Amino acid sequence: MNRASKRIATLLVFVFLLSFSLLAEAKSPLVLQTDFGLKDGAVSAMQGVAVGVDPDIRVFNLTHEIPAYNIWEASYRLMQTAPYWPAGTVFVSVVDPGVGTERKSIVLKTQTGHYFVTPDNGTLTLIAEKMGIAEVRQIDENTNRLSGSNESYTFFGRDVYAYTGARLAAGVIDFEQVGPRLLTDIIRIPYQKSAVKGSTAIGTIPILDIQYGNVWTNINKTTLDSLQLRPGDMLQVEIFNQGKAVYKGKMPFVNTFGDVPDGKPLAYYNSLMDLSFALNMDSFSSVNKVFSGPEWSVKVEKINR
Amino acid sequence: MNRASKRIATLLVFVFLLSFSLLAEAKSPLVLQTDFGLKDGAVSAMQGVAVGVDPDIRVFNLTHEIPAYNIWEASYRLMQTAPYWPAGTVFVSVVDPGVGTERKSIVLKTQTGHYFVTPDNGTLTLIAEKMGIAEVRQIDENTNRLSGSNESYTFFGRDVYAYTGARLAAGVIDFEQVGPRLLTDIIRIPYQKSAVKGSTAIGTIPILDIQYGNVWTNINKTTLDSLQLRPGDMLQVEIFNQGKAVYKGKMPFVNTFGDVPDGKPLAYYNSLMDLSFALNMDSFSSVNKVFSGPEWSVKVEKINR
Amino acid sequence: MNRASKRIATLLVFVFLLSFSLLAEAKSPLVLQTDFGLKDGAVSAMQGVAVGVDPDIRVFNLTHEIPAYNIWEASYRLMQTAPYWPAGTVFVSVVDPGVGTERKSIVLKTQTGHYFVTPDNGTLTLIAEKMGIAEVRQIDENTNRLSGSNESYTFFGRDVYAYTGARLAAGVIDFEQVGPRLLTDIIRIPYQKSAVKGSTAIGTIPILDIQYGNVWTNINKTTLDSLQLRPGDMLQVEIFNQGKAVYKGKMPFVNTFGDVPDGKPLAYYNSLMDLSFALNMDSFSSVNKVFSGPEWSVKVEKINR
Repeated sequence: MNRASKRIATLLVFVFLLSFSLLAEAKSPLVLQTDFGLKDGAVSAMQGVAVGVDPDIRVFNLTHEIPAYNIWEASYRLMQTAPYWPAGTVFVSVVDPGVGTERKSIVLKTQTGHYFVTPDNGTLTLIAEKMGIAEVRQIDENTNRLSGSNESYTFFGRDVYAYTGARLAAGVIDFEQVGPRLLTDIIRIPYQKSAVKGSTAIGTIPILDIQYGNVWTNINKTTLDSLQLRPGDMLQVEIFNQGKAVYKGKMPFVNTFGDVPDGKPLAYYNSLMDLSFALNMDSFSSVNKVFSGPEWSVKVEKINR
Repeated sequence: MNRASKRIATLLVFVFLLSFSLLAEAKSPLVLQTDFGLKDGAVSAMQGVAVGVDPDIRVFNLTHEIPAYNIWEASYRLMQTAPYWPAGTVFVSVVDPGVGTERKSIVLKTQTGHYFVTPDNGTLTLIAEKMGIAEVRQIDENTNRLSGSNESYTFFGRDVYAYTGARLAAGVIDFEQVGPRLLTDIIRIPYQKSAVKGSTAIGTIPILDIQYGNVWTNINKTTLDSLQLRPGDMLQVEIFNQGKAVYKGKMPFVNTFGDVPDGKPLAYYNSLMDLSFALNMDSFSSVNKVFSGPEWSVKVEKINR
Repeated sequence: MNRASKRIATLLVFVFLLSFSLLAEAKSPLVLQTDFGLKDGAVSAMQGVAVGVDPDIRVFNLTHEIPAYNIWEASYRLMQTAPYWPAGTVFVSVVDPGVGTERKSIVLKTQTGHYFVTPDNGTLTLIAEKMGIAEVRQIDENTNRLSGSNESYTFFGRDVYAYTGARLAAGVIDFEQVGPRLLTDIIRIPYQKSAVKGSTAIGTIPILDIQYGNVWTNINKTTLDSLQLRPGDMLQVEIFNQGKAVYKGKMPFVNTFGDVPDGKPLAYYNSLMDLSFALNMDSFSSVNKVFSGPEWSVKVEKINR
């Protein structure tokens, strides 16, 4: 090779590396969740801030229909959804009844490499248990706040959370630049864990499958392993609200809704492999006045047919 | 050219082709439709699976507000929308009352080059008629299923349909790799076709324009050509539910709603050029208790003014 | 350098420039707003048309839940949201009760460099005031209309507005190619401006924070500067509908909702720094039957505690 060719070859490598670095710079997705609804401009303002941070950012909506102020449900939706997103995904969750008070603004990095930007008010209860905490940092609002927004007391979702989440997803800042490590534990909402004793399992109703009125428990298939549940097994199900009986009935454990006649109850594993109750083609929740939250408890016994 | 230059030129061509292939690899859009609603995490989990397949995938929502289990309406929304998306677009439609039963999971390729990933339960009735069938393949769930999901009986939308649709849109698999060709016809929902005899046309009400309460028929402008309908012509309209008369009235055929006074009925061609009925600034459906589905029929006669 | 090397170098520069131009071509985001709702296929058809214009286009939804025909609210949502999107963003807003009549189709370029594609029916009232008008052009529907759509009288949102907005956002056309300059002023909706006299401020209720039932006025913090409002100051608030008193009460001006007990009224600056009224953890609007629109007026007086 002569000198000119060498220069050309050097240039070539440079062009190649440049192209590659530009093309390879896969931005992390940004996933938004709020209790704002989609009828006004609040979510769009958050998206605009994110696009202002990086025109190529990929923004997705988890849901904006969390019932107003319902931190527990916000926590549940993150736990239900995040495992299906790739590592590196940045979730911003804004259900923030304490906005403007002393509650902290934090970013949780899980052991799975997912990020969660949110007020520290219990929103991360279930994600912390499911994905494990790698590290938590408190947002430094001096550096991580949309410029010009410091007079606003009420829209942290746009000015701090969406802005910080977008900068993290776009690689404008790294996790360390969020702010100092949180030295205390995150806020956690207490709730009844699931357990098995003999042929009886207990637990809570963390959430409803609201579109269809199905009742989901927190009793996972792995918890029930000792019961050796098989399709066709009969279950006695009791459901309580603050300890008071609301429902008692027998139903088969089945693989699919079509295994029982229309309108009849059934038990099944939902998409998270948690034991759930339904009426085929009807709403178990509406018909039996059974709803969800930490105040609900469930007792399930495998019985002879 | 000396040998060094030839090597460099070869490299150049390689770099050029690589850059070009990376840049030119225009991914197909992925369009999702379900009856899940947007209040829980189900749609977001589907999107997460898609982004996990390809971080650059473009995901859009057709609607997630199909009434629960309403396969007919799912079919209609695909037919109404797909022609406005470019060839290559991959639609995933999950309205699946038979989930977990023997129904097949299929991908339809239309003669227009659009793809539809869905349970074979009638969802493709209207698309097959409108766009024509090029080929149908049954999804091989051994190869086209999110890894680790094989214990789940209930969330095909996420584990099979979104996953397969995303792989097809991203070019991870081609159409042949979906699975074997379906040798039987797809499932089709029977319904009344439109027809004209003399000055009278018949048809059904496939759907309502629900936001405004307008009533859409399946009688297209081309079907009505022989009637030589012109703005200002008067129509006698009769509407039946399972053959029983629900509405009978006269109304002008007009170009725009503003051509009749507020609250008055009118006939017009909707955005699909199908004959439709409305009340200016009010809901024809609510006022006259007229709804949609295969059980509704319509008789329209052009009369002297 | 020999001649061969020169040719290679030239090629190199060409490849580099090509790569750079392809990579650097940051498309503007396209933001859609309508009163169509998300239950049917209308919004998806608009998105499909946009993707057909440019497969790489970034499409966002502002909201599609504008109350049917409510041009004022469409105007408000644009004004509330657009400042948080980067210059160059193209907004398409379709709330169009006069579709098919003589109203013009226009594109407004603001002094901030944002674009708004919409019928000229008052939708741009508040944006024009907030961002300033740089230039308005009337859409030439001969050149800026989806090909094959010229028989449709009713879906301008898809065939003209989404199509033109996407072409503008993708750089297929520039602003001049939209059509001729509009020589008249845009249509503007008259409404009560805010003002201060002594210790009393007047204004209107342009919108509710509907998710929480908070009442937003158009009286900005800057308008109230002469009152020297501080947290803890007591306000006398009167609200009128068409001049008739609907509400009268005292409430403190505070920084955060938590500064008053649950259920108690408070005044605060919202995220736009406009004076607003709320009940902590309840709906001021529902409890006091106070709603929004140009027919509502407000009188606020700073009083001794």
